[in-house]
Amino acid sequence: MRIYDIICNKRDGKELTKEEINYMIESYCKGKIEDYQMSAMLMAIYLNGMTDEETANLTEAMTKSGDIVDLSSIEGIKVDKHSTGGVGDKTTLIIAPIVACYGVKVAKMSGRGLGHTGGTIDKLEAIPNFKTNLDKEEFFNVINEVGFSIVAQSGNLAPADKKIYALRDVTGTVESIPLIASSIMSKKLASGSDCILLDVKVGSGAFMKDIDSSIELAKKMVAIGEHCGKKTVALITDMDIPLGKNIGNALEIKEVVEVLKGKGPQDLTNICITLSSNMLYIAGKGTLEECEKMSKEALKNGLAFEKFVQMVERQGGDTEYIKNTEKFGESKYKEDIFAQEDGYIYSMDTEEIGIASVILGVGREKKDDKIDCLAGIILDKKTGDKVNRGDKLCTIYSGDKNKLDLAKDKIIKAISIQENKSKKTNLIKASVFIDKIVKF
Amino acid sequence: MRIYDIICNKRDGKELTKEEINYMIESYCKGKIEDYQMSAMLMAIYLNGMTDEETANLTEAMTKSGDIVDLSSIEGIKVDKHSTGGVGDKTTLIIAPIVACYGVKVAKMSGRGLGHTGGTIDKLEAIPNFKTNLDKEEFFNVINEVGFSIVAQSGNLAPADKKIYALRDVTGTVESIPLIASSIMSKKLASGSDCILLDVKVGSGAFMKDIDSSIELAKKMVAIGEHCGKKTVALITDMDIPLGKNIGNALEIKEVVEVLKGKGPQDLTNICITLSSNMLYIAGKGTLEECEKMSKEALKNGLAFEKFVQMVERQGGDTEYIKNTEKFGESKYKEDIFAQEDGYIYSMDTEEIGIASVILGVGREKKDDKIDCLAGIILDKKTGDKVNRGDKLCTIYSGDKNKLDLAKDKIIKAISIQENKSKKTNLIKASVFIDKIVKF
Repeated sequence: MRIYDIICNKRDGKELTKEEINYMIESYCKGKIEDYQMSAMLMAIYLNGMTDEETANLTEAMTKSGDIVDLSSIEGIKVDKHSTGGVGDKTTLIIAPIVACYGVKVAKMSGRGLGHTGGTIDKLEAIPNFKTNLDKEEFFNVINEVGFSIVAQSGNLAPADKKIYALRDVTGTVESIPLIASSIMSKKLASGSDCILLDVKVGSGAFMKDIDSSIELAKKMVAIGEHCGKKTVALITDMDIPLGKNIGNALEIKEVVEVLKGKGPQDLTNICITLSSNMLYIAGKGTLEECEKMSKEALKNGLAFEKFVQMVERQGGDTEYIKNTEKFGESKYKEDIFAQEDGYIYSMDTEEIGIASVILGVGREKKDDKIDCLAGIILDKKTGDKVNRGDKLCTIYSGDKNKLDLAKDKIIKAISIQENKSKKTNLIKASVFIDKIVKF
Repeated sequence: MRIYDIICNKRDGKELTKEEINYMIESYCKGKIEDYQMSAMLMAIYLNGMTDEETANLTEAMTKSGDIVDLSSIEGIKVDKHSTGGVGDKTTLIIAPIVACYGVKVAKMSGRGLGHTGGTIDKLEAIPNFKTNLDKEEFFNVINEVGFSIVAQSGNLAPADKKIYALRDVTGTVESIPLIASSIMSKKLASGSDCILLDVKVGSGAFMKDIDSSIELAKKMVAIGEHCGKKTVALITDMDIPLGKNIGNALEIKEVVEVLKGKGPQDLTNICITLSSNMLYIAGKGTLEECEKMSKEALKNGLAFEKFVQMVERQGGDTEYIKNTEKFGESKYKEDIFAQEDGYIYSMDTEEIGIASVILGVGREKKDDKIDCLAGIILDKKTGDKVNRGDKLCTIYSGDKNKLDLAKDKIIKAISIQENKSKKTNLIKASVFIDKIVKF
């Protein structure tokens, strides 16, 4: 077998065999295939696509390139969750405690902020003394005791994906559905859970800008998951608007606590209930309707909040900050941003708002930048809201006064106020199961 | 400007600007663009194509990447000739002396054998003491005195093409018409002639296997040449059959002499007359009909032969071998190959015959192999000929007895004898001018 012939096959629109894909991934990891050959292959895949079977084979080959986490010592059904990344997306921190109330285990390995989207690990590290780097034994212990644990991704999961992603990033081959699907799913499969819930974001703040391509991506990923024996569901959720009101690490922890106490913003609460219902559903805990009731109950009776406090405690975090989020304090500098005209908020460029939050210190512009855990944005108005000139749209927070101005300009440009009200749309766009797609 | 964006533009089917192409080629030559980025770009070009303007801009950028030969000190019109490579193709050695008889100058820089196709320089080096590495002054002197000179390609012509070709060769991006056209034409433009005759081979022994793609390639190359102010014509010629009877270095020199003396095989003679007529025509020496008469006259009156002898003499070669080709002697081993059945020669797999000749020692299997200048094949029968069982089809020659058997097997398989006669087709398939295509 020669990579040259495999490249030519994909170039000519042929379907690659499992053997060809395995050879390609194994040899690339061993350094026997050059980057310039792999990048030609990636461009051929980008332009000629891959069938479901090819994508599944590629995913399996990348999964097998590294460690596969063995979760068998954790009792019960293990459900993993993946979000394609959003602005203000703190749902993991809400839904994991909800499903844990019903014995569904979540062994979550999360990432840090990437580009304009936040990362769950950065958010948790806003809690003083919270440890995100548990060793495997401790990680498993927390899950067995509390029902869930969230740690920073470590170990050697899908190294082929890591190597290929770095190449895609500089060769214009990132936005390819089979490549995105196999990249995400290879890591999920290596993470060892029994079921997978995928939250595929769509809209201006997401990787996928339109609903059709996000459904296509979701279908591919669900097909891969099921092909590998994992019960998998994908929800297509709106990222044309930031999720909830708070963007920023400590600010989002505050909002998580509000939702877990049943006092959070309605949009965020609803989306979390839908996500956790689907998680309970694929774990076999009942019908979707029953699972929805269970999710609401866990918020209402305070058990989900209890679970969250337990997890923070077990991972070394100061639970006083969770019990009384005022303890986080406030950023050194803040500034209110006001509406400059009358009308309705017609749209919010969520990617730009995400970038503004990174400027404020929520994320990293360069790899080694330090996170400002109190920095961020609290939105008072969102798409569809009526505003009068002078109304407060949002407040921005930063430890660096100079950054306020930079971010302010971006945010003003990102919020479009018009005479006419825009249609409010459902935040959940569709559910994608292996055998059906339900659009909302 | 960033190569990433340029890759994305080509990936998305956009037309690249002249500035983008110049930036890409310059930066790649300087090592500022990585091979893995260039190979992704090449695959995107392969799959999405290039417009005539993009191809012309790519060609110019590659031409400008190295030296451009200044032929201004040579008097008269300079015409260059390029063949895409064939088996038994010795036409350059015949047509250069023909056009030189009429004051058209040919400053030819030729290559060595490549794969299954022979190289003009290897053929000339069969003549004892012939020098193919003249310095520039001597090269120009020979041209001014004799009218033409043929030397081995040297200097730093289109180094960008060299670097890109090496990458295409290992990434499945060779067979792309805009990439082939720009590769060939960048070297032709750097060679400095006023007019260019292109001989685009089509058929089993050629790079282009069908007539449509060879016409497409020819059109692209003619468009580039004319865009750069060079009068350019392309002839599409048949390579479903070896050219002439002799394949091999000394064997082909013998056949060249036969043609120049008016005693060569008809097919080879005719194709040379057509090629030289077109060369004279683009050099402005008359109508095509007039130029055809002139070409025939130069063979008939012996002047073309005289020119050839003069050139060999001026480049240090022993002209006794030209005046009496018996002096070359014969290979140490030879073997006749006979027809194993009655019928007609239906087809000859010319690529396989070319490979057989390389096995015999005509070309190099590895870069450092030594050429066997007496090795080769003399064909007694060709496509369309009637044969009876036991008739001699050809004789093969080699200095290595073991190689005869290997080559013999290949040749027997390559020659298909069937009951029915195949149609004899015209060796010249089409002429491609900037403003018209004439099919024959």
